[in-house]
Amino acid sequence: MPKIVDHEERRREVLSAASTVIVRDGIDAATSRAIAKEAGLSNGVLGHYFTDKDEILLSALRHSHQRIRARITRRVEGLTGLAALREVLLDNLPLDAERDQETRLEISFWSRSLAVERLAAVQRAEAAELRAAVRQLLEQARTAGEIRTDDDLGVVAERLLALVDGLSLRSLLYPDQLGRAELERILITTLEAL
Amino acid sequence: MPKIVDHEERRREVLSAASTVIVRDGIDAATSRAIAKEAGLSNGVLGHYFTDKDEILLSALRHSHQRIRARITRRVEGLTGLAALREVLLDNLPLDAERDQETRLEISFWSRSLAVERLAAVQRAEAAELRAAVRQLLEQARTAGEIRTDDDLGVVAERLLALVDGLSLRSLLYPDQLGRAELERILITTLEAL
Repeated sequence: MPKIVDHEERRREVLSAASTVIVRDGIDAATSRAIAKEAGLSNGVLGHYFTDKDEILLSALRHSHQRIRARITRRVEGLTGLAALREVLLDNLPLDAERDQETRLEISFWSRSLAVERLAAVQRAEAAELRAAVRQLLEQARTAGEIRTDDDLGVVAERLLALVDGLSLRSLLYPDQLGRAELERILITTLEAL
Repeated sequence: MPKIVDHEERRREVLSAASTVIVRDGIDAATSRAIAKEAGLSNGVLGHYFTDKDEILLSALRHSHQRIRARITRRVEGLTGLAALREVLLDNLPLDAERDQETRLEISFWSRSLAVERLAAVQRAEAAELRAAVRQLLEQARTAGEIRTDDDLGVVAERLLALVDGLSLRSLLYPDQLGRAELERILITTLEAL
């Protein structure tokens, strides 16, 4: 009887291996060969699951985002407006080992997205979803009188997300300058000033 | 008589070719072979100027930073405090084609710095210089009564630079959401609120 291989399970293993290689060695090093080796599979087997390297990378990004979305959904349960916004944005900072890895994966994609349109399209779609969620929570916060700013809330959302991206990046590049406690404090005081 | 080749001139050509390849095709694609091809040189010749790919990339980053420093020095001539700070930070945003290219180079290095310690060390040293300059200008601005914030100015500097990095990144990834005018306006209103 042939060995039964669970296709979805194997696919998840490949994605997990891809994330490990990207985070540890950089996106440059995430070749099909390196990912297969990390997953303990032969190079040829990878082709049954993914057509090329970019498809593996895209799937790893989407997989990571699904996990983040599920976590945030749990985190904001029962919250609205500013309280929910605070949780969403804090969750996007690398405040623990899991989110540190997620942020490294994200940063790797930023530079590749600038060169590969197929990745850029996914990056834009995923970013649009987060931007819309942040904007909606800002509108709830304004309606509830929790924030005072008269600025266009689309611009406020973009500014907050830029701060989150910049803080995330800098805390990984310059951990001596920007520790986790500082990171959290900067975001919270920025929200309090809205 | 042998053809006289100006070593420094040839080195600059290689760096310029490296920047072109990184910005156009991504840092992944910036192999020694691709850089040599872009510079119109044979692969072997590159070895006379640089020991390996990372040395080429590092030199391209340093070369870009030198150009930025020279431009900023001209731009802040005769200015101090908040006025000088505004020029320094605005200069760090991709508000024209030249700075768009510089920002793409920078973003490419972020992800590679996370994986290659040798690049990370240079990234940290270069970032420390800019951080110190921003902090010094904030201190001048406070002494001159141009800003009201009671926050630690080291933290304010880090927050401003995080915003600049995040805005720069997002304006390249999502140009439809964050145009150059918006980018400039967000930075200026952030400085006015200090």
